[in-house]
Formats: sequence, C-alpha cells, structure tokens
Amino acid sequence: MTRRHQQIAEALRRAITDGQLPVGSALPSETELAATHGVSRGTVRQALAALLSEGMIGSRQGARHLVLSTAPSQSFTELRSFAQWAHASGHTPGGRVRESSRGTATAEEAALLQLAPGDEVLRVLRLRTLDGEAVLLERTVYAGWIAGAVEELPDDCESVTQALLASSGLVFAHGEHHLDALAAGTVDARELRVRRGSPLLRVRRTTTTAEGRPVETSDDRYRPGAVVFTVRNSTQANPLARTPAG
Amino acid sequence: MTRRHQQIAEALRRAITDGQLPVGSALPSETELAATHGVSRGTVRQALAALLSEGMIGSRQGARHLVLSTAPSQSFTELRSFAQWAHASGHTPGGRVRESSRGTATAEEAALLQLAPGDEVLRVLRLRTLDGEAVLLERTVYAGWIAGAVEELPDDCESVTQALLASSGLVFAHGEHHLDALAAGTVDARELRVRRGSPLLRVRRTTTTAEGRPVETSDDRYRPGAVVFTVRNSTQANPLARTPAG
Repeated sequence: MTRRHQQIAEALRRAITDGQLPVGSALPSETELAATHGVSRGTVRQALAALLSEGMIGSRQGARHLVLSTAPSQSFTELRSFAQWAHASGHTPGGRVRESSRGTATAEEAALLQLAPGDEVLRVLRLRTLDGEAVLLERTVYAGWIAGAVEELPDDCESVTQALLASSGLVFAHGEHHLDALAAGTVDARELRVRRGSPLLRVRRTTTTAEGRPVETSDDRYRPGAVVFTVRNSTQANPLARTPAG
Repeated sequence: MTRRHQQIAEALRRAITDGQLPVGSALPSETELAATHGVSRGTVRQALAALLSEGMIGSRQGARHLVLSTAPSQSFTELRSFAQWAHASGHTPGGRVRESSRGTATAEEAALLQLAPGDEVLRVLRLRTLDGEAVLLERTVYAGWIAGAVEELPDDCESVTQALLASSGLVFAHGEHHLDALAAGTVDARELRVRRGSPLLRVRRTTTTAEGRPVETSDDRYRPGAVVFTVRNSTQANPLARTPAG
C-alpha cells in the first residue's frame, strides 16, 4: 500500500517531469499543498523531504521550494536494485534480455568474480526501461555457480534481484561502483536510441553476497538525462573537520 | 613525511599509469614485492590495500593481484578536496583561474546557496591539473559572504579548501554530489583539450559548513579517462538483507 506522503511526492515528481513545474520554478507553499491534498503540513513535509533527497527540489526560499532538476536521481546511500529504486521514486521499471550466452572468464572478469581465468561465466545484455523508455543498458557477467538460476528467469523479468532471492535465496548484500563517462558505441546507440558518440554515464559495479562472494560484475550505461546519481558525504573522517575554526 | 607503504603504493601506481603494468597483467607476488622494497609483507599488504580501494587492482588470484584500471579513482567515502585527493593518491594537483567575475544569483543558484535571487555571488572558472595534465574544469559559484576571501587567493592556488581554511577559518564539512554525463561544449573542449561533443563526467556539488551553511555550488566536468569515481554500499538499511536465505 502506498502511503499518503508517497502519493503526494509522486504527484509532485510527475508535475516536474511533465514540465508543469519547470526547473527554476517555485513549488506551491507547504500550506497550499496541505490544502490541495487535504493533509497536514507534516505529511507535506515528508513528501518534500523525498524530493529534496533526490535533488529534484532545493532548500526552501522563504515559503517556497524551487525545482532544481527534472531527472530522477539515484542515491548511493544504500545498495538497491534498479527495480527497487524505480519503484521507490515513483516510476515503473521494465527489462528485456537482448542477448545471453555462456563463455569463459577473461583475466579481468576472473579477478572481479574471484574465479580462475577460463572458468565458466554467463554474459547477459539486458535493456532496462523506466515508464516504458529505454534508460539503461546492462552488460552483466554472472559467476558460473549462479548462471543456471539466471537463465531460468523470464526475459522480461522486472527485478532480477527479487527473482534470484525468491528462486535461489541469493542476497545481493554489497556493491562497489566505479563511475565514469564514455561515448555510446554501436550497440549502445541501437539499444538506448541515441546517436553513436553520445555521452553515456557508465557504472561498473561488482555485487557480492553478505559473505563477500562476488555474484556478478556489470558494465551499466545510462542514457543522458535519464538518471542522475547522488552522493552525500562529509569530512567526518577527515582531519580538516577537527581543525578549530577562527 | 611519506610512510614506506605509501611510497610503495605510489611506485605501483606509477608502474600502472606508465603502462609498465597494463590492465589485465599480474602484479609481482607479495613475497616478491617485499623483497624488492626491503619491507615486510605486512607493509606490502598496506600498499596493496590502497590500490584495491582505489579500484586499480583486483582481489588476489592465487599469489597475484591483477591490474584492473589505469585511471586513478576518487572515493566518495569522505568529502575531500581535489588537492587532498590528488596528494593521497600519489599525484600532483595544480590549478589555474581562467575567469572570475561577480554577478547576481540566478533562482537556481539562490536556492542551492540559500540566498535570495539577485544576491551577489562570485563565479569562478578554474582548470585543475593532475601531474600537469588538464583533467577537470570547475564552474564554481561562491556565496557573496566568502567572495572576497576567494578573490584574494592566488590564481594558481593549489588547494582552495586549505587556503580558505588558513585565511578565513572556513571548513568545508558536507557535500552533496549529483553525477551525470554530458557532451563537451566549446569552453570545455578548449580548456580540457578534447573535441567538442566528447563525453564528460559531470559532478554538480554543493558544499556546506558544519552548520549546514552553503559555501559554494559547482559544476565540475572531468576529461574522459582522467578520473573514476568509486562508491561502495550495502543493503544494511534494506529489508532484503534481513530476509533469511533458503
């Protein structure tokens, strides 16, 4: 069941992505939003907190929040699957396997998956959609020990993470992500419907079980404008923060 | 003073970035490295841990670590300035102000910096180098209250963070970062010496004091292949991790 503040957050997100509230425009005040939706200001604040944390709106200016971004934002605070993230931010995820084949691990894949070079792996090219639009092309390499369970999933499986948990009790517990940018190649361009050479955000990630056993390593490429990644940090562990000011 | 394991880590980084140890090749074993550098295996392991955490090498395969990446990697675990990060990863940072001018805050800048639209801000275009090579173009907007202190810094100031701490007691305590990819524009291409349209990694960040007062908001664009960003996370806060396997 969706809670009231989540429904309001979703309504605001749609107004922003649909262009009713363009970047730089002001949201209605908390009082106005509370009246419109027939809820308390506390509930409105919960909805606004979600959009603030996603980077879609900025801190309050007087009575108003301003729209900062129309792209949904993915936070790295916790490891979440694409489908989990999509649902949590009010979008409908989809997926389609485009190619799938078994092969042997390259030296790099073996190092990432803690296999021996030449061990069997499963390579899957999977297109992910958000509200029906292609946003992400995943090139995932699975360790041989989970390959059979992955092959049994339907081609349009919405959440591989959920499906593997259900079918094999597999928990994706830790992720390491390396982010950079690169130009779309021929396959990227065809699948993501962009021109060759378009800038793509690439996330190379390796996911492990709670015990640290690598399950998959993936090269994920995002269509420009589709998703923004958000990271918050502080100098807590940094000597600078402990230097007295003045 | 640089400690022994940091020197060994730096020697290995140089061997990787110089191409002596290309991607996919194996590092010497811990025993060999200990003998070469005349240190204990414990010291070698400390050096290797740094390269592992930067994503430059992978987990051990038998006796060897494999080289995974030649680009230095920037972690988001804590907030660090460009200069701090460069030094910590064994590189020499540099900087040069290309343009600097006072103006008035746009609605978006005002929202990010918690100013009123029209308040004074300082806009600085700054090129950052790593070992003499242009890797990052920063478009930074400073809140008016810190503008004077920023203007007093030398144009080739190596670390703005350190300099503002020294001159004004200012501590950059928290950062929020939004990452995406975009195509290089005319200014980007000229300053970063890439072709127009080349894919750039963009980090839009807003930095605040320990009290949460925004100091600066910046649009930082990284030359392809120059820097990789790394994020580690887990499902700790996620119900999936608490589902019993089986």
